[in-house]
Amino acid sequence: MGGVSTAGDRVDRVPKQDRSRVTRQRLLEAAVACLAEHGWAGSTVSVVAERAGVSRGAAQHHFPTREDLFTAAVEYVAEERSLALRALFPEGGADRHAVVAALVDLYTGPLFRAALHLWVAASDEEQLRPRVTELEARVGRETHRIAVDLLDADESRPGVRETVQGLLDMARGLGLANLLTDDTGRRARVVAQWARLLDEALG
Amino acid sequence: MGGVSTAGDRVDRVPKQDRSRVTRQRLLEAAVACLAEHGWAGSTVSVVAERAGVSRGAAQHHFPTREDLFTAAVEYVAEERSLALRALFPEGGADRHAVVAALVDLYTGPLFRAALHLWVAASDEEQLRPRVTELEARVGRETHRIAVDLLDADESRPGVRETVQGLLDMARGLGLANLLTDDTGRRARVVAQWARLLDEALG
Repeated sequence: MGGVSTAGDRVDRVPKQDRSRVTRQRLLEAAVACLAEHGWAGSTVSVVAERAGVSRGAAQHHFPTREDLFTAAVEYVAEERSLALRALFPEGGADRHAVVAALVDLYTGPLFRAALHLWVAASDEEQLRPRVTELEARVGRETHRIAVDLLDADESRPGVRETVQGLLDMARGLGLANLLTDDTGRRARVVAQWARLLDEALG
Repeated sequence: MGGVSTAGDRVDRVPKQDRSRVTRQRLLEAAVACLAEHGWAGSTVSVVAERAGVSRGAAQHHFPTREDLFTAAVEYVAEERSLALRALFPEGGADRHAVVAALVDLYTGPLFRAALHLWVAASDEEQLRPRVTELEARVGRETHRIAVDLLDADESRPGVRETVQGLLDMARGLGLANLLTDDTGRRARVVAQWARLLDEALG
């Protein structure tokens, strides 16, 4: 007890918190991979815990319900991707074609597959729906903000907001088109043309 | 036997074929509604037969497998919608804003929800995947042809093909954005703006 014990507690606590954070992160990453590969029906807390090499009890300590785990996972990976996207263009004033291509890339990887599975499941399951709706709105707003910044778009001009929104809708549609087949070639041509249209529209 | 019997057969056969066609149609429409409401997991031949008021045996006579029924259903309703879309603009030279709005409407109803459930299921199920991939390609080509005709787009000009493709990708993305919430207001503004940009791009 006393000073020594407190100091000892402190020393123990730091790596414990680190371990806990690492465990949480591994669970979130495993959850997105699982959702992308097996869909909602095949994605449970147990399956994710096993994939992450974490006990089921530890998984449930971090995420009491299946909904907690998978919505947190999609949000976490979306945030990571947003940070990575901003880091790609640290200077501003980037080439708009490169920005459009990078924005579209957000919708063609495992994160989009995972989010799509979650959206579709939420459209059928009342328990999941409000949480995924809120998550989608939050992630959508953040992506829109990043797009406006990176494209150097002046939203005070009429039509600019809707131009950027339509671009992100197109990106989402391109993600869907890539679900069953590798759409890379066609996508690159569409991106090149729409980047031109956007560049003219944004001035 | 002989002349009389043949004549009798003929008389019987016509209404029987009609009945068979009507049964088939009811099954296809019930299948799309079922898929849109309950997703792939909740959609079986039995559930659809009951909804259509058809015996399970009759349903299986028309569609031996679950995959047969649901891919035929999405294709049938997509064809119906294509015909309806062409019928909306019989004259050609239509207002491009109206055409863009009608194209986007293809992706916001029960057909899109049904197709989305089928696509997502196909991305996980090997049995379904090749059939849905082929169906998606066929429906996509037909929608592209209609869009080019109705927009009076000259695909021999560079970039025009990709402009129209991007528009249909945007329409698909707008469909996805409408899955969990009623996105009608935002969608109308995006459609108005991109119809303007498209009109300029297509000349």
